[in-house]
Amino acid sequence: MTKRVKNQRTWFPELSTRDEANAMNGAELLIKTAAAGGIDICFTNPGTTELPLVEAFDKIKGFRPVLGLFEGCCSGAADGYARMAGKPAMTLFHLGPGLGNAIANLHNAERAGSPVLNIIGDHATWHRDADAPLTMDIEALSKTVSDWTRTSTSIETLPHDIARAMAVANKGSIATLIVPQDVQWAETSQENISKINHEPVQVDMDFVQHVAKHLRNSKKAVIILGGSALRGNGLRAAARIMEKTHCNLLSETFPAHMERGVSLPAIDRIPYAPSFASEILSRYDCIVLAGAKEPVAFFGYQDEPSRLLSAEQKVIRLSSDKDNLQESLKRLADFLGAPPYAKFQIKLSGSSLRPHLPAGALGPKKASAVIAALQPENAIVVDESITSGAGYYNMTATVPLFSLLTLTGGAIGQGMPCAVGAAIACPDRAVINFQADGSAMYTVQSLWMQARESLNITTLICANQRYKILEKELARTGNRTPGAYTKALMNLGNPVIDWVSLSKGMGVPAVSVQTAEELAHHLGFALREPGPCLIEMKL
Amino acid sequence: MTKRVKNQRTWFPELSTRDEANAMNGAELLIKTAAAGGIDICFTNPGTTELPLVEAFDKIKGFRPVLGLFEGCCSGAADGYARMAGKPAMTLFHLGPGLGNAIANLHNAERAGSPVLNIIGDHATWHRDADAPLTMDIEALSKTVSDWTRTSTSIETLPHDIARAMAVANKGSIATLIVPQDVQWAETSQENISKINHEPVQVDMDFVQHVAKHLRNSKKAVIILGGSALRGNGLRAAARIMEKTHCNLLSETFPAHMERGVSLPAIDRIPYAPSFASEILSRYDCIVLAGAKEPVAFFGYQDEPSRLLSAEQKVIRLSSDKDNLQESLKRLADFLGAPPYAKFQIKLSGSSLRPHLPAGALGPKKASAVIAALQPENAIVVDESITSGAGYYNMTATVPLFSLLTLTGGAIGQGMPCAVGAAIACPDRAVINFQADGSAMYTVQSLWMQARESLNITTLICANQRYKILEKELARTGNRTPGAYTKALMNLGNPVIDWVSLSKGMGVPAVSVQTAEELAHHLGFALREPGPCLIEMKL
Repeated sequence: MTKRVKNQRTWFPELSTRDEANAMNGAELLIKTAAAGGIDICFTNPGTTELPLVEAFDKIKGFRPVLGLFEGCCSGAADGYARMAGKPAMTLFHLGPGLGNAIANLHNAERAGSPVLNIIGDHATWHRDADAPLTMDIEALSKTVSDWTRTSTSIETLPHDIARAMAVANKGSIATLIVPQDVQWAETSQENISKINHEPVQVDMDFVQHVAKHLRNSKKAVIILGGSALRGNGLRAAARIMEKTHCNLLSETFPAHMERGVSLPAIDRIPYAPSFASEILSRYDCIVLAGAKEPVAFFGYQDEPSRLLSAEQKVIRLSSDKDNLQESLKRLADFLGAPPYAKFQIKLSGSSLRPHLPAGALGPKKASAVIAALQPENAIVVDESITSGAGYYNMTATVPLFSLLTLTGGAIGQGMPCAVGAAIACPDRAVINFQADGSAMYTVQSLWMQARESLNITTLICANQRYKILEKELARTGNRTPGAYTKALMNLGNPVIDWVSLSKGMGVPAVSVQTAEELAHHLGFALREPGPCLIEMKL
Repeated sequence: MTKRVKNQRTWFPELSTRDEANAMNGAELLIKTAAAGGIDICFTNPGTTELPLVEAFDKIKGFRPVLGLFEGCCSGAADGYARMAGKPAMTLFHLGPGLGNAIANLHNAERAGSPVLNIIGDHATWHRDADAPLTMDIEALSKTVSDWTRTSTSIETLPHDIARAMAVANKGSIATLIVPQDVQWAETSQENISKINHEPVQVDMDFVQHVAKHLRNSKKAVIILGGSALRGNGLRAAARIMEKTHCNLLSETFPAHMERGVSLPAIDRIPYAPSFASEILSRYDCIVLAGAKEPVAFFGYQDEPSRLLSAEQKVIRLSSDKDNLQESLKRLADFLGAPPYAKFQIKLSGSSLRPHLPAGALGPKKASAVIAALQPENAIVVDESITSGAGYYNMTATVPLFSLLTLTGGAIGQGMPCAVGAAIACPDRAVINFQADGSAMYTVQSLWMQARESLNITTLICANQRYKILEKELARTGNRTPGAYTKALMNLGNPVIDWVSLSKGMGVPAVSVQTAEELAHHLGFALREPGPCLIEMKL
């Protein structure tokens, strides 16, 4: 345990008293260990209890802290970063309230299988019992979204704790390490840096053979792809299996990161509405889950099942989302003797085919068509359009290759910061954030981050001034004549949000459009210019 | 347990199948019970799992739902409402993520002793096991900020659960009731409405006499006032005790709601800096806590104590914050034979005395002076000015009577929504929100609520473009030459936030000022005009 010595300051000592070659404090040890393990970015809004870690950013080379004005923007950015970079970002938050603000987007990250390493500063160990105003049960809070939570109570255990947290995060999980301030400022030696072992991910060939047997023996099978199986290598291997076994392919409803477009097999997503989803899934006697969870209804409706599969259907799992899915699919294809992908790629390749640019007053479908018509090759499209973008997916099967990131955990306010993280992970790619207005307001401070970091993000606000998903869900229950309060609670139109003014207030240039032509003009311009911009689409 | 009947909708039946005089669903029962118990407002951002409750707002008379665009604004508004109305508001949030977004301001509310009744919609009981995307451990999340948490798993237990939640909330606590959607739509009878008993609050005379003995026998005593002891009746009773026993009076550092101004005894607040606080407190051999917690350092500093009192000092508690503090103080004054307050009120009364209006370029002190010079009688001043308003308190001892609401739990982002709740609780009083810029950005969506509800709130943004408290805390550690990253993480100036644009974007008229004269001119105007406005003070 670190002992507190009254009237003696140990964590910012005179340089002369320190063994310069070797001495460091807990905060520096933490950042150095994370950097050695491959983490090089931290999304943060720090406070007093994180100051030693803040100072460590200036002492350890190669680590970049990115300030957010609200923790929900930081956790959403960490999720977006992880989806694109395939490795964890660090976050750094201020005690329980800071973590509390990050919870919703950590939940989305957890559902996305995104690796995230949260570092939470806490009061000094000897100050916790005082129950000072900011004191909370941070561990209990963390456990609601983290796969792994620990408090480092001494400088002796800190190296092991950091290493463990990073190992957990690297497996596609949320790891949260709480570091009291006295552990951050305690002195230690360079030699204590733990090496992070990247454990090689195995493929379980017994499992692969088991799946192969079922694919061969089933009448009609479907592979539901999720997680990294939806990226190029996964899709290509799955297409080989389809070619060989005549199974079908489906995507989970809300992919964390799907690669899509010309030259990749186009697959349908399981519909959101459980009745449609059940109908589609009922066609198969064998369901192989490749990185996807068993499909269930998003909400429990009175007249719909919770689970979309019946007891008669055989459900087998190829691999967990956190194993090497792409390699598992490839081994499965090889084991089945499937033809190489190149053999039938000819069917898929050729020039891209896009929707025609529409004209006239803008609506959700035309907005979707303009985006699909103009998105550049290698674009990253963050889709939190909720109802407005319902038609977009089907327009993009043959557009130039792009990455699609969707709302995995249902906690709205994900798109704006997810775009931030994606743009930081991939500075050379254009990011298009197709964004519902109600959801955008949850983490609207993300625009400031976009301006601060000069990110290539074009935010397209679907300004329909309502929570339209709620109108639809209400109509679904049979209530087509909502009362005055019910209508008011689904409506954002009083006052109308002026997105141009809001965006400029946070340093992001903005324009408002009402026709498809205006949208095409401004989107084209925005995609050519560097830096962020926002287009309010009056739908 | 509510049984789910497939293909049969029970919660929105044809009217003809229902015993109209008596039938209602769980959602209506909940709202009706809350209304019968005196709750008449709900701050909410609902989702699909709350739709039956949303519809119930239209069916039960006398209940007003207020939409917020982010749950942190709703929980902050509930806190502000409770501080001014002295009774709970309801909140209504969407599963775990909705509650997660509300956590930080619920933490502030908990530290303020504000009564709040949270209602959280959850998946139908039979849908929880499906682990649908929005599923979280809501109870675990709730327990981090709630004094009481329960999930109502059937319509049979719902009436008792609501009654219990309200009884807990009414005692100045956070009560959270999780109501699965099938319990909301289950049918029940009117007769099941539980009556909420407002338990009369007792005064423990044994305790009063114990305190009296110590006050008489101590060399020098101080009463630290907190909670409702800081309102008029509490302050007047405390002044009588001071007159009789020559004890001193202090306020807790961050009062939830203090009444202050001419005709009330002016008392000092315990300083934020622990060294100053310790020095002041060391003067007393007897400390009486009247609604205040034992004073501790806000953060644990290496060279400062956690607890500000020594083992030699006698600490006694007059009453808990949730008992009848004002009455306890009055009984204590009576028991001591203190003179009536009227006898020495003459010393305090007379006309109010305000600072002179300053002139020239605006700084924190001049901003404070302009507010103190112009705030109208009965103003509600929400002070989340953090560093900028440090001089304000001492300028307001003799201004016209007003209410001061401060940041109780240290979770920034409290001022903007607290002002919303206070203005809704007291529509006839002017609300001035003295607001740090960094903190304002946390819950900036509150401006939209102010416009939507046409609230009489003047927001004064301290636009110093930095987390100045962090600069001070860092300097305190001895680091006066922060590195580039450290400086960047404390700075909001890149890009500069344009508060006028931001505010107008959410429907609140705004102006920017750089001199004391401009501030006085626009503040005077803002206080005369109805509805919200924002003044950006370039400090």
